[in-house]
This record gives sequence, structure tokens and C-alpha cells, in this order.
Amino acid sequence: MTQQPVTRTRVGIVGGGPAGLMLSHLLSKQGIDNVVLESRDHETIANTHRAGILEQPSVDMLTGTGVDGRVKTVGDEHRGIFLRFDGESHALDFPELVGATVTLYAQNEVFVDLAAARERDGGDVRFETEVVEVLDIDSDTPGVRFRSVAGGEQGPVEELRCDILVGADGSRSTVRKALQAGTEGKDYFTAYPFAWFGILAEAPKSSPELIYARSEHGFGLISQRSETVQRMYFQCDPATRVEDWSDDRIWERLQKIVAGPDGLTLKTGPIIDKTVLGFRSFVRTPMDHRNVFLAGDAGHTVPPTGAKGLNLAFADVRVLFEALDSWASTGSRDLLDAYSDTVLARVWKAQNFSSWMTTMLHARPEASEFEDMRVRGELLNVVSSRFGQQYLAEQYTGWPHR
Amino acid sequence: MTQQPVTRTRVGIVGGGPAGLMLSHLLSKQGIDNVVLESRDHETIANTHRAGILEQPSVDMLTGTGVDGRVKTVGDEHRGIFLRFDGESHALDFPELVGATVTLYAQNEVFVDLAAARERDGGDVRFETEVVEVLDIDSDTPGVRFRSVAGGEQGPVEELRCDILVGADGSRSTVRKALQAGTEGKDYFTAYPFAWFGILAEAPKSSPELIYARSEHGFGLISQRSETVQRMYFQCDPATRVEDWSDDRIWERLQKIVAGPDGLTLKTGPIIDKTVLGFRSFVRTPMDHRNVFLAGDAGHTVPPTGAKGLNLAFADVRVLFEALDSWASTGSRDLLDAYSDTVLARVWKAQNFSSWMTTMLHARPEASEFEDMRVRGELLNVVSSRFGQQYLAEQYTGWPHR
Repeated sequence: MTQQPVTRTRVGIVGGGPAGLMLSHLLSKQGIDNVVLESRDHETIANTHRAGILEQPSVDMLTGTGVDGRVKTVGDEHRGIFLRFDGESHALDFPELVGATVTLYAQNEVFVDLAAARERDGGDVRFETEVVEVLDIDSDTPGVRFRSVAGGEQGPVEELRCDILVGADGSRSTVRKALQAGTEGKDYFTAYPFAWFGILAEAPKSSPELIYARSEHGFGLISQRSETVQRMYFQCDPATRVEDWSDDRIWERLQKIVAGPDGLTLKTGPIIDKTVLGFRSFVRTPMDHRNVFLAGDAGHTVPPTGAKGLNLAFADVRVLFEALDSWASTGSRDLLDAYSDTVLARVWKAQNFSSWMTTMLHARPEASEFEDMRVRGELLNVVSSRFGQQYLAEQYTGWPHR
Repeated sequence: MTQQPVTRTRVGIVGGGPAGLMLSHLLSKQGIDNVVLESRDHETIANTHRAGILEQPSVDMLTGTGVDGRVKTVGDEHRGIFLRFDGESHALDFPELVGATVTLYAQNEVFVDLAAARERDGGDVRFETEVVEVLDIDSDTPGVRFRSVAGGEQGPVEELRCDILVGADGSRSTVRKALQAGTEGKDYFTAYPFAWFGILAEAPKSSPELIYARSEHGFGLISQRSETVQRMYFQCDPATRVEDWSDDRIWERLQKIVAGPDGLTLKTGPIIDKTVLGFRSFVRTPMDHRNVFLAGDAGHTVPPTGAKGLNLAFADVRVLFEALDSWASTGSRDLLDAYSDTVLARVWKAQNFSSWMTTMLHARPEASEFEDMRVRGELLNVVSSRFGQQYLAEQYTGWPHR
């Protein structure tokens, strides 16, 4: 039916972010032929500032599979976080509580490392290549029509046919939309009545590790990027416009959020990036249909409070890779058939953790005064109980991949 | 100004339920003069079926202060609970998790024991005595006007004057209403969109320990009273009328709630009591004003899901007794002044725990499908994590009194 040139591969991967590239990397190491299509160019992804808290299994996927890169040198191992409320910081010591750490390493740096490894190993990763249409999701050989959009010019439409099609194309996933339109299944969704105002500032660190602060002025997160650049966030209305917030106004708000009897004061400097991040929770079930699979944000998104987005994506990729490896080497679909249930169990635990951290730390515009006091009781309970600290730390540092 | 006969005492206690009687008992043991006024008669309180899960410190207050009674012989020590969802029960083993147990012993039995101890020790406990008015809460000698209502006949109005007036008169507390009307302070309140339908049934035990069940038919609690009488509850609309629920209809609902692949079936029998229990959370702050103090339900009510009501009341009484003992023996008000803050820290932790157990286990009419799935993720997280189990068990078995 089609006149276009057809490329054949075993695994077609739509999306060249961390999830898609990691899957491609693992498959290629096992000699499983694959192609990655990514609509954006390398520069755009590399330079889009994204936060990143990597759980240990996520770090291990980079260092243990030959991606290497700079996660161990540039990445910053964090041994805990501070929960701050009523103007007082409470340290959670992850190694002492649960024997784990996390690593601060921006998601766009993870992308850079993975893209470099794919290039080094001769991977077939096509940037600036947009998917026009998803094909034959009910067949044994699904595929996509795609075309180059390099330099802003549309090339001729081509076709990719594969045994397995993976949608790792993010929260606005084209592959997921094809499943939503053409298959049974269910979407779960919830919105939150606030957003995060995020900044990058040229300033020294104000805290060695992350501070999650609850205050009468709303939530604030004091994070880091490097010795000279810091990342911070504060809770805002979803309709907030960045142009309404001068540097002075931003610093004033952040200082108020962290103010307390201990005299904590943020070290300020020029703000070089301002963004408003929306909050949503989404889950598509099942995360597969015949030979089409979703991974990462394409299948589920979480609010940023739990720092779970990239880690869930990597956990998906690990499970999916092992299923594909088993299928490629034995022909058995057993692990592929179990994929959706396996990853969704983790996804719902992470949705709950993200929701818990969010409701516990943010001021909800519609919350009653009772609710406000209850949440303070909850924070007090968590920080005054070793079990409470361990329960939170276990979820923050992440569940083992298997 | 008054013409009535005036009784003087050091501590006037309004309310002769477990909280008021326990406080009276402890004060009398220290030789601190006190009088208890209770509007109901002994029979009514003794025969009003009330559930009861006693934390270890609550049991210790009965056995360690000479109340004795039957808590150790009739009371049933429970080593855990079952959390049941998706038709599967998950055992929480409290001694193994947190080194604690709870004791199933009905609140009205606690009352009977305390009333007997007060009578044995010559306590001044006046049943069928209603408070007409609370007097002079701003003065050094607050008091009440009261009269006998024994046999349904109103006696002459008398007056009680005391150094310290304690409102231990339950959720509709007269003393609290006087504080609400006459002092600054704040009431925190939340309602829940459901109630519990509670039954007593003449039947053998269906489970050795409590089952907290979440199901598509709502929440159910399978509890016990004795070898031959069982207590069970299921979630219902607050407007539910007991007369609309036949025994057959009740058993059908309860069986559906616990149904699962393991074939759990409730042992049935004649239902001898049916009640609808409202759900509310309430906290009055502060819990004192000058020489007037609130204790137990007069100051705060919790939903029954966390089994915290009587335990919070006993914890209040312990703190208040120690403060009164210090004040009586040294004249220092320091502990009295700290009373409200001290007990409210525990109250808010308990409000949070009660709210957590409630939202995690009940079907909320307005909940989204996302929320329903998130809660299943939460239950899975709790039962699959030792820290999660410990965090819940620690709260269920209760925080130490000091």
C-alpha cells in the first residue's frame, strides 16, 4: 500500500530521551537490532534544564552497562534531605536509615551521556525525525511513518516496520495516543491546584543537600546544580507568568518560605532561567497492546515532588529490556506479557509517594484549617519516628528494580 | 450572689466516663480532693456498647494504679491486625514489628471497672447529676451549678466551686461550650462523607484478630467482643436508618466486603444491636483557660478507624494528673501551663493517623478512579515494606505517654 522506503528493525523506539536511548543502548549490547526516532535535535534536549535525582539503581544502569559518562564525577551523591516546617529543618540521613543514597545529576546530562554512548557504539539514533503516523498496532509488525525535520525542513515520508514498537516519547506521546484511539484501556488522571516556579541562579549553595520546605507562604525546594549554579522552586498558581516575577520578588518569596528561628538565609545571585512547571499525575493502563509497549512518561507522569519521573522510566526500561532480551533469545513472550502489570505496581506506589510528598508539603488553596493542622501532625509524626523516617527514605531512595 | 448550697473541692470534674473517673481515681490516690459529676446513670453507661482497643499504656493505667478489674482476664490481647484489600488479608504482627500489643476491651467495661474502683475507694462520684451552668471561668475559683436528675426528677440547684475545673464530659461537653462562648481560641473541624453501621451479633469469631477490609463495596471492620458475641462494622451513608437494614441485608453486605479468593466467610448469627456511628474530627485549641481544662472527647474527637479515642483520653488524663499533682504538691503551674501544648502534639498525630487509616480504607463517594488506584498503591506499599508496616503498627499501638 505504501510507496515510501521501508526500514526494518526488530525494535522500533519512538523517543530519544533518556528512556528511549537507555533501551536502545541495552538492546544493542545484546545484539538486538533497533532504531530510535526523536523529533527534537540533540542541542535542544541537551540544553533544556531538567532537574534530576537518580536512585541508586538508576545510577547503576549508567555505570554498570558501559554508558559511564559523568554521573560519578559531575553527579553529586546526596546522603539525605531536609524536611523543613515551622521554620525548623529536620535531617533525614538515608544511609543510616535505609542504607541508600541518591545522586543529584540533571536529566539533560543523563541524555548527553546516553547520546554519546549511542554514537560511540554506532547506534541508529535519528534526531530531528518526527513520527507522522503510527501504523498497524493490531498486527505482528507495527510501525510508524516518519520524516526528517532537520533544519526545519520536512523530508520525504519514510516507513519503519518492527517486531516490537516502543513509545518512549514522553508525556505527549504519539504512540500512546495511537493506543488510546485504537485499543481498549483506561487513562487515570489527576490535576493539582498549583504549579512550581523554578529558577536557576548563579549563586553559591545555600544548603549541602535538598531542603523540602513547608511554610505559610507555600512549598519551596532548595536544590543545587553545581558549586556556582543553584536550582530552586516555589509553589505557585498554575496561571503564573514568569514575566510577572522579577529577581527581587522571587528572592523575597523564597527567603520567606525558608525563614525561621535558625536564621536560614538563601545565598542569592542573578537568576538565569525561570520556568513554571505544571503538576499532573497520569497513568495509562495497560501499558501495552500486542507488540506495542509504552515506557516512561509516555505511560505515566508524576508530580515532581517525589523526584520519581526519570527513575520510573529507567525501571520501565530495565523490565522491558529483560522481557525483550528473553523474547529475542528464546521466543517466549512470557515476560513481555507480564510487563504492564510488573511496571504498573511500581508506578502506583510511586504515584502514591509523589502524592503524599505533595500533599504533605504544599499549601492547598482549598484546604481547611483542620487539614493544615493535620498535615503538621503528619510531618511531626514522620520526623519524630524512626519508622516514619525510614518509610519516607525508602520511598525517596527507591524500590529495588527486582 | 447565689443562694444554693455550695460544695468546695480542689478539682471539680464534669463527666464520669472513663476519662473523668480515671482522673478522679489518680487524684484521690494522691490525696487530692475531687468531685465527679455525671449526668447519666451507671446502668446506662455500663450498657451502652462501645468498642475498645486499648494501647499498652492505657492498659497499664488500669493495672498499674490499682483499678485492676477485668482487663487482664476478660480483655483479649491482640498481637496484630489484618489489612485486607483486593480480597487478600495481610497480617501485621505488632510484637515482631514494634514490640507492642493492644488489648480488645470494651470502653463500657473500662467504665464499669473504674466506677467500681471509685466506689471501693470512697470517691465522690455523683451520677444522674447534670450541670446547669459553668461559672466564672475567668476567676481563680471556677465552678458549676448542678442538680440531681435521679429518677427523672430535677432536684434543687447546687453549686460546686473548685481550684481547677476539668471538662471530661465528652464530645458535647458543657465545659467546652463555656470556653467556646467565653474565651479566645479556635475550633478545628472536619466532616467525612460516610458513617459506620455497627452491629453486635451472637456468633462465633470469624477471625482471631481485627480485619480492616477495603473493598469495592466499601470499608468493613471485623472485630470481636467475646467467644459468642462479635462486633462488626461496614461503611454507610451518614443518613442510613438502621430500620432499613434487615439481618439478611447486613450479612450480605459484610460477606461481600470480605469476599476474596481465599474464601473468607463470616460466621453469622442473630444481630442483637444495630447503630450508625457518625464520623467527625474535632480539636479545640487551646485545651485550657486559666483554671479550666478539657480532657478526652471534650477537647477532641477522632474517627473510629484509628481506635484512638479512649487512648487519647487516657493520655490526656495522665498528663493532666501529673500536672495537677505537681501543682498540688509544689504550687507550681509549669506543667499545667504546658498541658495544652503537650497533649495537642499527640492529638494532631492521632488525627493524622485516624485520617490516614480512614482515607486508605474507605471508599470515598467523590473519589476519582485515579485516587482509588493511588490508595491501592499505598496499601501495597505499606504491606510490602517492613518500614511501612512498622510505621503503621507504631501508630496503631500508640506512642508512649512520655
